[in-house]
Amino acid sequence: MTGRPPELDALIAEYHPGLAMPRGFYTSQAIYDHDIVRVWNRNWLWAGHESQIPEAGDYVLLDYGSESIIIVRDRDGGVRAHLNICRHRGSRICTEAEGTARVFACPYHAWTFELTGELRAGRAMGPDFDPSRWGLFPVRVTLFQGLIFVCCDADTPALEPALAQLAPLTAPYGLDRLKVAHKASYPVPANWKLAVENYLECYHCGPAHQEYSRSHSLKSPKEMAELVGPLAARAAAAGLSSEMLDLTGAAAPTPFTGAYLRRYPLYPGYDTGSRDGAPLAPLLGDLKGYDGGATDMGIGPLNWFLVYSDHLVGYRFLPRDVQQTDIEVVWMVHADAEEGRDYDREALTWLWHVTSQDDERIIRHNQAGVNSAYFQPGPLSEMEGWVGDFYNFYLRMIGPDPEFRKAANG
Amino acid sequence: MTGRPPELDALIAEYHPGLAMPRGFYTSQAIYDHDIVRVWNRNWLWAGHESQIPEAGDYVLLDYGSESIIIVRDRDGGVRAHLNICRHRGSRICTEAEGTARVFACPYHAWTFELTGELRAGRAMGPDFDPSRWGLFPVRVTLFQGLIFVCCDADTPALEPALAQLAPLTAPYGLDRLKVAHKASYPVPANWKLAVENYLECYHCGPAHQEYSRSHSLKSPKEMAELVGPLAARAAAAGLSSEMLDLTGAAAPTPFTGAYLRRYPLYPGYDTGSRDGAPLAPLLGDLKGYDGGATDMGIGPLNWFLVYSDHLVGYRFLPRDVQQTDIEVVWMVHADAEEGRDYDREALTWLWHVTSQDDERIIRHNQAGVNSAYFQPGPLSEMEGWVGDFYNFYLRMIGPDPEFRKAANG
Amino acid sequence: MTGRPPELDALIAEYHPGLAMPRGFYTSQAIYDHDIVRVWNRNWLWAGHESQIPEAGDYVLLDYGSESIIIVRDRDGGVRAHLNICRHRGSRICTEAEGTARVFACPYHAWTFELTGELRAGRAMGPDFDPSRWGLFPVRVTLFQGLIFVCCDADTPALEPALAQLAPLTAPYGLDRLKVAHKASYPVPANWKLAVENYLECYHCGPAHQEYSRSHSLKSPKEMAELVGPLAARAAAAGLSSEMLDLTGAAAPTPFTGAYLRRYPLYPGYDTGSRDGAPLAPLLGDLKGYDGGATDMGIGPLNWFLVYSDHLVGYRFLPRDVQQTDIEVVWMVHADAEEGRDYDREALTWLWHVTSQDDERIIRHNQAGVNSAYFQPGPLSEMEGWVGDFYNFYLRMIGPDPEFRKAANG
Repeated sequence: MTGRPPELDALIAEYHPGLAMPRGFYTSQAIYDHDIVRVWNRNWLWAGHESQIPEAGDYVLLDYGSESIIIVRDRDGGVRAHLNICRHRGSRICTEAEGTARVFACPYHAWTFELTGELRAGRAMGPDFDPSRWGLFPVRVTLFQGLIFVCCDADTPALEPALAQLAPLTAPYGLDRLKVAHKASYPVPANWKLAVENYLECYHCGPAHQEYSRSHSLKSPKEMAELVGPLAARAAAAGLSSEMLDLTGAAAPTPFTGAYLRRYPLYPGYDTGSRDGAPLAPLLGDLKGYDGGATDMGIGPLNWFLVYSDHLVGYRFLPRDVQQTDIEVVWMVHADAEEGRDYDREALTWLWHVTSQDDERIIRHNQAGVNSAYFQPGPLSEMEGWVGDFYNFYLRMIGPDPEFRKAANG
Repeated sequence: MTGRPPELDALIAEYHPGLAMPRGFYTSQAIYDHDIVRVWNRNWLWAGHESQIPEAGDYVLLDYGSESIIIVRDRDGGVRAHLNICRHRGSRICTEAEGTARVFACPYHAWTFELTGELRAGRAMGPDFDPSRWGLFPVRVTLFQGLIFVCCDADTPALEPALAQLAPLTAPYGLDRLKVAHKASYPVPANWKLAVENYLECYHCGPAHQEYSRSHSLKSPKEMAELVGPLAARAAAAGLSSEMLDLTGAAAPTPFTGAYLRRYPLYPGYDTGSRDGAPLAPLLGDLKGYDGGATDMGIGPLNWFLVYSDHLVGYRFLPRDVQQTDIEVVWMVHADAEEGRDYDREALTWLWHVTSQDDERIIRHNQAGVNSAYFQPGPLSEMEGWVGDFYNFYLRMIGPDPEFRKAANG
Repeated sequence: MTGRPPELDALIAEYHPGLAMPRGFYTSQAIYDHDIVRVWNRNWLWAGHESQIPEAGDYVLLDYGSESIIIVRDRDGGVRAHLNICRHRGSRICTEAEGTARVFACPYHAWTFELTGELRAGRAMGPDFDPSRWGLFPVRVTLFQGLIFVCCDADTPALEPALAQLAPLTAPYGLDRLKVAHKASYPVPANWKLAVENYLECYHCGPAHQEYSRSHSLKSPKEMAELVGPLAARAAAAGLSSEMLDLTGAAAPTPFTGAYLRRYPLYPGYDTGSRDGAPLAPLLGDLKGYDGGATDMGIGPLNWFLVYSDHLVGYRFLPRDVQQTDIEVVWMVHADAEEGRDYDREALTWLWHVTSQDDERIIRHNQAGVNSAYFQPGPLSEMEGWVGDFYNFYLRMIGPDPEFRKAANG
């Protein structure tokens, strides 16, 4: 829908593997618009959890760029998604981030759509009007143990093959028995890719995240190695596999799909991602105890989760404009946990609140420097391998090869 | 002055009569800039009422896009208009929305212009300087029963032929004996065309305007038909013709000119557009009583008025940026009416204040949906005929035909 | 780094000497981006005073457009400048406007640079990493009697030849013995060139600067002529030469360099730029008394100073966006002066605070008028000669001639 930006080929040619990406990828409005169409509209995006929409008509929105998607529980108990655009003259239909609807009535002219997206008969539309042609545009939905993923593009490969491999590893966490404890948004004046790159490496954790670094071993590969063995034994006792799944990069079924899971050690004394190491909430799922570990999980190339023994933290980096991104963080706990009794919201959210504030600051300064006409991409460190993988993913997504998607599916 | 946007021809080709217009007309900065030059700078715009500038030197500004026009009472009692640009280095000359000036002295270097726009001798401009070459750029003025219209373009056809047909129908209202009771501005983050389209149809009145719909029959064509007969008799008794004038669309003298007037019924119990139906102010002009009707009036393709028996409401939808528009509403009453004694400002403005707030909201959500890359124009209803007429007008204005304006004048 | 804007040649052709410059120079984002690269990145910019960074590691930043430069005192007592961009992934390194650093540690991944810009060994960069390749980009520094000037471009001619001629004239002021008393920033929604043009002429001083005009003769060339003779005698008594230096326009060594100095009279009763004419601070340098004059000084084409007998005011007009500029004003006094005892900050800054507020207003209105599609450049007055010189400078800087810089150096 959006043309290929004229500067794109030169930018791609300018990129050298092993270095950061050139400036224009982070500063050009045309590149940003193209990113929305080629990356965001064609990939699976984490939209929420089934517990947020338990009853028929319950809905949440997922907004990014200029797009808005309605995710709704239908009358048969299924989850459906629709583009939040009236087929008449284009108004947004749902204007609140979440709610409950009997039907979707457009606030402008009251065109009314069923939860399934079908248009009811149009008022004053004349005798030849065929409502069946004007239903809401459907968006694909994939459910995984309660987590909801959506994708606008009909041709994007299915997530299920990767999820099938992931499922046994996540089963003990009881992801289907979670509830949202808190959501927060950290707007950062930077391109979405700088926010993603920030998430994908822990080279910055030592310098930039004092609180995180006290408890999480990822900042120091050597220390971590020593802690991995003891963790495996404790994990087994708690009911967790220590098996790693890495369906990313060349191992991904397709560039659009893939999954990742790895349990890694917290420092001794830490049961979870809390200020003092003490538990924050009831154990998740079927876990029998705290193993002193945390799980990094990725589903598709744009959705990340950090699973502690007693809570899950989900991350999204939603583009708003070429240099405006919302870091969205969602904290989830066991569905039966009750705020005040079983967990304290401020304690639960402390670590990733302060860490996200740090990230906002360093991503903002990263963009400021990249905006200089003198910026030249520098070399990635040994701890930034996933950043390089992200560049590969990104460049394939925006690349010119018309046979690309076919090959990806083939 | 602004080149033809490269995307324009493709967008025009994309348009299908009977459907809404494609997305690019509402999202492109280049199209917006072109709109200002081709639509706004070439059409007659309502700039105010003579009662606002009773004395020599009294002036008001009309600002839209990046343009600013001074409308001033000259020393001969006439109304003149000038571009609000100093001919020296381009400063705005009048920087307040209204005021009184003995002469127009530029606040930058004090170049001083007569109310007629002529430059007085320039300070330190050397012996060869000819002040007569550097007067303010003139803007055309047309007066109609006290209402002031201005047009920047020398080639735009005159309004007078259409106004001559309108004049006998509006005579009873005494439009020349009005005064401004209140002005309000409702900024909406949307393209100006979406604001105009909103004004031009009442398909949305039922769903979106609860207060308006209690009193005004326009939302329901069938109910209205039953009320029209009784209204005609009451109107005649009050001193009003029930004749309709429709010089719009194909009936307009030229695409730039035209006029429209129709008296339509309020619901029983409503004398005027008030909360409870009761009168709001002294009867206008020569009216002998309340007939329970309201008059829709259009002058040129961009200026609209709603005339009740006791007040007039004028509307402008002034572009500020590609997705920023000011809905400006002006309430006028009989020139002799005195606030506090003859009318209550809050009661007078209640209906169109709440209605304009509703409109701001729905126009904003309309733009949000149209911004989606997935938006596809849908079919207009039977109640959106004027929206289609507006598309025709707009497309002729921006169209490529170099012979267009000649033909329009011919 | 930025391509030549396609509209540039037409705009240059549209310019007529003796008139203001065409609209597009002040409204186009592409022209603005090109200005940063061709004008700002290639010229000498005033970055501060040595007294701001007395100790090793003390630094100040100079930010303009999307660029940021660190000016730092090194361990050998010299002044160095670096681009404020980490060579790893581009983060800003210093994030405060001034401070003291032992080394420059990037806040993102802790790449650490010496005050000289050299990178220390990189953490986790692998065995083949060569830190010597990844030092901070150097920026050139020229010092003049304590004033610090920086330039990003290696090919820009040196300032020293012009400064050598200026030095004897400024010697009595003791510019090396100053300290900053106050700094203020006046953001104005206008292109940087309109702010510069405003500074370069006093045709507007009478109409727009009531306070300034009470004390400074520049607004009235005839009055000034009568005052110049008496000033010369008083200046000599105070220890000042009345010699004028004009290395601007055709007299400049190169378009990038040059200098200007002229002592001109205040009105009788004014010792300095104060409200009541009374002194504001201890006499500068070796001055023996007040002569009732003020010195206009320019160093390079973009840096201006006003030197009274007891304080100096420095001006910068820093571009932030196509229509956003910061007017930055710095007040300096004798290094030994103590606030409260020797000067009152509010009294010291009064004149150029109110004058800068006036300038903000008139520059803003200038931009508003220039934004009109109807703006046409008007003729410059006899008092705007330097504005015409600025146009010449600007057009040479952005011009197409590939031989230009060579010729400028030759």
